[in-house]
Amino acid sequence: METRLTRDRRELLIGEGRPIAVIGERINPTGRRTLAEQLARGEFTLVQRDAQAQSAAGAALLDVNVGVPGADQPALMARAVRAIGEVTDLPLCLDSADPQVLEAGLQACEGIALVNSVTGEERSLESVLPLVQAHQAAVIALPMDDKGIPATAEERLAVAERILSRAAALGIEPHRVLVDPITMAAGADTSTAQVTLQTIALLRAALGVNIVLGTSNVSHGLPLRPSLNATFVAMAIALGARAPIVNPLDARMMETVRAANLFLGQDPWAMAWIKAFRANRAAAE
Amino acid sequence: METRLTRDRRELLIGEGRPIAVIGERINPTGRRTLAEQLARGEFTLVQRDAQAQSAAGAALLDVNVGVPGADQPALMARAVRAIGEVTDLPLCLDSADPQVLEAGLQACEGIALVNSVTGEERSLESVLPLVQAHQAAVIALPMDDKGIPATAEERLAVAERILSRAAALGIEPHRVLVDPITMAAGADTSTAQVTLQTIALLRAALGVNIVLGTSNVSHGLPLRPSLNATFVAMAIALGARAPIVNPLDARMMETVRAANLFLGQDPWAMAWIKAFRANRAAAE
Repeated sequence: METRLTRDRRELLIGEGRPIAVIGERINPTGRRTLAEQLARGEFTLVQRDAQAQSAAGAALLDVNVGVPGADQPALMARAVRAIGEVTDLPLCLDSADPQVLEAGLQACEGIALVNSVTGEERSLESVLPLVQAHQAAVIALPMDDKGIPATAEERLAVAERILSRAAALGIEPHRVLVDPITMAAGADTSTAQVTLQTIALLRAALGVNIVLGTSNVSHGLPLRPSLNATFVAMAIALGARAPIVNPLDARMMETVRAANLFLGQDPWAMAWIKAFRANRAAAE
Repeated sequence: METRLTRDRRELLIGEGRPIAVIGERINPTGRRTLAEQLARGEFTLVQRDAQAQSAAGAALLDVNVGVPGADQPALMARAVRAIGEVTDLPLCLDSADPQVLEAGLQACEGIALVNSVTGEERSLESVLPLVQAHQAAVIALPMDDKGIPATAEERLAVAERILSRAAALGIEPHRVLVDPITMAAGADTSTAQVTLQTIALLRAALGVNIVLGTSNVSHGLPLRPSLNATFVAMAIALGARAPIVNPLDARMMETVRAANLFLGQDPWAMAWIKAFRANRAAAE
């Protein structure tokens, strides 16, 4: 199953037999005060800089979240999408819990964007899926519903199936629905990361859908987060995840993704591995 | 399926629901001139120091290879086993292609050792398996045979099945046979690492055997070997490998193994993760 995203004339294919598609998570004001302040004033300098830096670091698409409390977020999203388009043609992942913000982003965005996200909650299904279909976009499905986040992989699979079935009823094919298995803090609950990994394996085996992995929650509250995040992404990729949502400026993460590409047969003769090594060495000198 | 190894009164259990068991690879004269010279003179200072250092770094068992050309290797193996026993009670992995060397090691070793290795080659099956059974040891099986190393996971599974069946005929139960999927240089062949990973998944699904992973070949000839090795081990663990053969003095590798234990539910409240972080920080100060 292959997911196709585009922007302008650039195309990105996600799936088995394709390189890992890193979704750059940096354009998000949560916990980034300067970015939040700029967005609140309608300034996009940092957004553009983040877009360029993540693109240069190897992101395949960029998450765009303009969640500044009190701001006119639909307008901000549209402007952010255009501002990013001025500096890179990477496909976008439009990130909001508010359907109006998503719609503004979809209207401003040329090509096939990824909507982040729909859940199995009735309100989300009813508001987000029609937007996805109207704009022929793709969407990230989070397998949680009105009862919350299921504790087991089997229950998450069941919610994912319900979302896929609701999507199909509107004409949204499975290749346009990427499922995120849901990652929570591993330090707070001994079995939670294992459930996430099991969910990936189960979703791949039962549905064959492409898997997005929201990553950074896994290391919440723990020391050495880059090390935890990188190991978790490597494990998730081995089980079938193909699009981790991460910080592309985290050198260890990108090194891990390049190594995983090599081990998945996506880097013939390790050319990309060696090239990145040389570029990093040259940059360090 | 659980593999039980012992030395003196120390017990190590390998399997699903158990922490990753790191097999320390350092006691091996290949490419280590000082160690080779010491072994050739019958000196075990460095062997003992390696044993202590690997034990302190978190190895669960120690590989012992005394392959110095021209030396009386059976005698060396017996003496090395005793010398290691003076400084640590970790179970041992007796590593030689020569059955006489393995036998000398097994005779010198108290407890249940791991024999490294038997292959599907007729000569190996005939000479190694009876030793394993006579000493009630466990053994690492390499799924290659008189025709060489199979190119596909399915063929490696078939060879592993043949080895298990020959072992069973002598009374060696499957839990005493750990299979190594065979790892070759990823830079030399685009698909080889993928075949190794597929073999792990297939062996787990079809046979349920415990998986050992000879690791370091994967990065042969490439830059940033610790990064490649760590990512490969993380991916292999996600698919079911439980005993990687690695250098425990490689800090990144051990960090990766600790992270994997956390994600597999083997580190409640991340206590071991936090403890190792604090110990390393204290050591660095």
